[in-house]
Amino acid sequence: MIYLTRRERFSSAHRMFRPGLSDEENLLIYGKCSNPLWHGHNYVLKVTVRGEPDPEAGYFMNATRLREIIHEKVIVKLDHKNMNVETDFMAGKVATTENLAMAIWNELHAAVAAEGAQLHCVKVEETENNFVEYYG
Amino acid sequence: MIYLTRRERFSSAHRMFRPGLSDEENLLIYGKCSNPLWHGHNYVLKVTVRGEPDPEAGYFMNATRLREIIHEKVIVKLDHKNMNVETDFMAGKVATTENLAMAIWNELHAAVAAEGAQLHCVKVEETENNFVEYYG
Amino acid sequence: MIYLTRRERFSSAHRMFRPGLSDEENLLIYGKCSNPLWHGHNYVLKVTVRGEPDPEAGYFMNATRLREIIHEKVIVKLDHKNMNVETDFMAGKVATTENLAMAIWNELHAAVAAEGAQLHCVKVEETENNFVEYYG
Amino acid sequence: MIYLTRRERFSSAHRMFRPGLSDEENLLIYGKCSNPLWHGHNYVLKVTVRGEPDPEAGYFMNATRLREIIHEKVIVKLDHKNMNVETDFMAGKVATTENLAMAIWNELHAAVAAEGAQLHCVKVEETENNFVEYYG
Amino acid sequence: MIYLTRRERFSSAHRMFRPGLSDEENLLIYGKCSNPLWHGHNYVLKVTVRGEPDPEAGYFMNATRLREIIHEKVIVKLDHKNMNVETDFMAGKVATTENLAMAIWNELHAAVAAEGAQLHCVKVEETENNFVEYYG
Amino acid sequence: MIYLTRRERFSSAHRMFRPGLSDEENLLIYGKCSNPLWHGHNYVLKVTVRGEPDPEAGYFMNATRLREIIHEKVIVKLDHKNMNVETDFMAGKVATTENLAMAIWNELHAAVAAEGAQLHCVKVEETENNFVEYYG
Repeated sequence: MIYLTRRERFSSAHRMFRPGLSDEENLLIYGKCSNPLWHGHNYVLKVTVRGEPDPEAGYFMNATRLREIIHEKVIVKLDHKNMNVETDFMAGKVATTENLAMAIWNELHAAVAAEGAQLHCVKVEETENNFVEYYG
Repeated sequence: MIYLTRRERFSSAHRMFRPGLSDEENLLIYGKCSNPLWHGHNYVLKVTVRGEPDPEAGYFMNATRLREIIHEKVIVKLDHKNMNVETDFMAGKVATTENLAMAIWNELHAAVAAEGAQLHCVKVEETENNFVEYYG
Repeated sequence: MIYLTRRERFSSAHRMFRPGLSDEENLLIYGKCSNPLWHGHNYVLKVTVRGEPDPEAGYFMNATRLREIIHEKVIVKLDHKNMNVETDFMAGKVATTENLAMAIWNELHAAVAAEGAQLHCVKVEETENNFVEYYG
Repeated sequence: MIYLTRRERFSSAHRMFRPGLSDEENLLIYGKCSNPLWHGHNYVLKVTVRGEPDPEAGYFMNATRLREIIHEKVIVKLDHKNMNVETDFMAGKVATTENLAMAIWNELHAAVAAEGAQLHCVKVEETENNFVEYYG
Repeated sequence: MIYLTRRERFSSAHRMFRPGLSDEENLLIYGKCSNPLWHGHNYVLKVTVRGEPDPEAGYFMNATRLREIIHEKVIVKLDHKNMNVETDFMAGKVATTENLAMAIWNELHAAVAAEGAQLHCVKVEETENNFVEYYG
Repeated sequence: MIYLTRRERFSSAHRMFRPGLSDEENLLIYGKCSNPLWHGHNYVLKVTVRGEPDPEAGYFMNATRLREIIHEKVIVKLDHKNMNVETDFMAGKVATTENLAMAIWNELHAAVAAEGAQLHCVKVEETENNFVEYYG
């Protein structure tokens, strides 16, 4: 079993808040990350898939194909977007890195399986100091 | 003459657009960076100051003092903010990295001089692939 | 289950040696790392905790709270210190990265559990080429 | 159980192709990576071994010894070489990162075991965006 | 005056040798870098241009346009190529990083000037430890 | 004129203090960096030399030779040492990064000139956030 990871990046605006709460209440919970006028990040996304390499080809999934899937399913919906307002798979969710990683997993899972591989891990780095990993 | 650089970071939302133009016209000029619903970045800021080290102290400006100045004058106004709307020194300016670097220079220049040092360079890294430097 | 990692840094002096052995014997075992007059490193510490995100909050443990715990329990005792002489939780231990990772685990375990999360991994990077991970 | 990782680097030329296929067929499968006149990379290799630290020594395997083994068994055969033509353990294999990681595992396994440790993971980073991991 | 830098990458095979000398003589001069069967690198290219930002636009040259020029003039001729054999602007030159930086300068100079900007610096990083800069 | 940079690393213990002052007075000036029991860093050293490449050789100074000079003159005296006590060229100087950069310049200047090149810049990075450059 081999694990293949592709690193991609996207730059998004977001805000952490729960719709049912006031700005003051959101501020208490999420601090400066709840700023009503938004802020943003250069997110780093690392998607790991696993499989048994084909002995003749020397791989189980082409890294270029993995890149295409990540761009089609995830990057075009997040890069240079406001993830709270514009990203369909984040609708109705608090825009935490945790929810983002789980939502990206859901977007990628079937498309990776359709290539005969298994999605193993979605890692989202919000800053150089904060990372989240989700293994399904 | 010694050059001392302090690296700081801030995460902001922004949008590139000229107030007198329509969203369509801004889109033609700035592409996806003009998204009306904002996007954002983890900016890296490198501020370089220069001076003659005091022979007894072994430095000309304390790096901790430089960090304080950068935070007081720049970081608190940009970090977890929308720089188009909330950052006073960006008011009325297109939020390009170029304008940001020049505006940060203006914010820092006098405060660095008040410490007996000279501001040498303001470098702003918007992504890992795009940097801007301003030397006054 | 989500895995959340916080990256922190500390700069310490240390020396690898066993109290019962001479400097010559320690030199044979630990090489230049046993230098009696000390040396030091910029350590990078990555602490991973895991838990089930609260559906409403969108997380299981606030990254800011994790940062506070790491600083209170670990960083204040190591940063700009001599870990052999000044760090209580390293007393009587050889100051290897391995022992450091296990000692940091012990310092953090209960405090993370008190937040309703589980400590998953303590990673200590001594240089850009040498890392140690401990999973309890 | 402690996991110790050593990071090493090597710069090699390679080409992805299957001997039984024409250049055109290889181009269809491997794209620009099949260039008959070669290309190359700065590979980053991360080798992770695991073991129970000796309580007196504070480690289970010296990082310097691990470095020596990696250099003797792997780096001298890959660094500044053409891995398709000159690296014995890649003979007859397609020079994918996947095959490279598995071949490096085979080269290191016994030598690590002879030190009383267990090989845990071989990670090969071909570029800053593409990584492969093999756990045996 | 503002300095704008764009970072790009290319992966090439090369060999350092002087056509008039034997492999043995080249080995004496260039060491392992003269390997007749080639080796390769992930090169990092940083191109810096300078100009006076247009007050209305907030920049003097679009970073996307700079990226296009670098790709058209340089990257397509080097990436996944053998620079000694396939890169026209390296023909007849020893494939040192120094010669590469000067040749890239010549490829970019007129195209940058045609955009109303000035080429300031071409930096080529061959490994994480070796860099070359050329300022014309 | 070409600028060639070599990156090296060393891990040292140090303390900032002026011999004529008490620990309390040093604490007021240098803060936690004056800890009497030392602390340490992984320093990154970038040495830049300049010259006119020989047209036949394609370089003006071999990067391997530059590496040797840096190791002989600087690294062996700093790596895994206490720079206040053990490094001859830091004797009698406050162990600031500024003084360190100037002292390293003095150690390297003649040896670089003896190779027919000119020393251009000594850059010392004490942490990922603090750098010092000296140009002679």
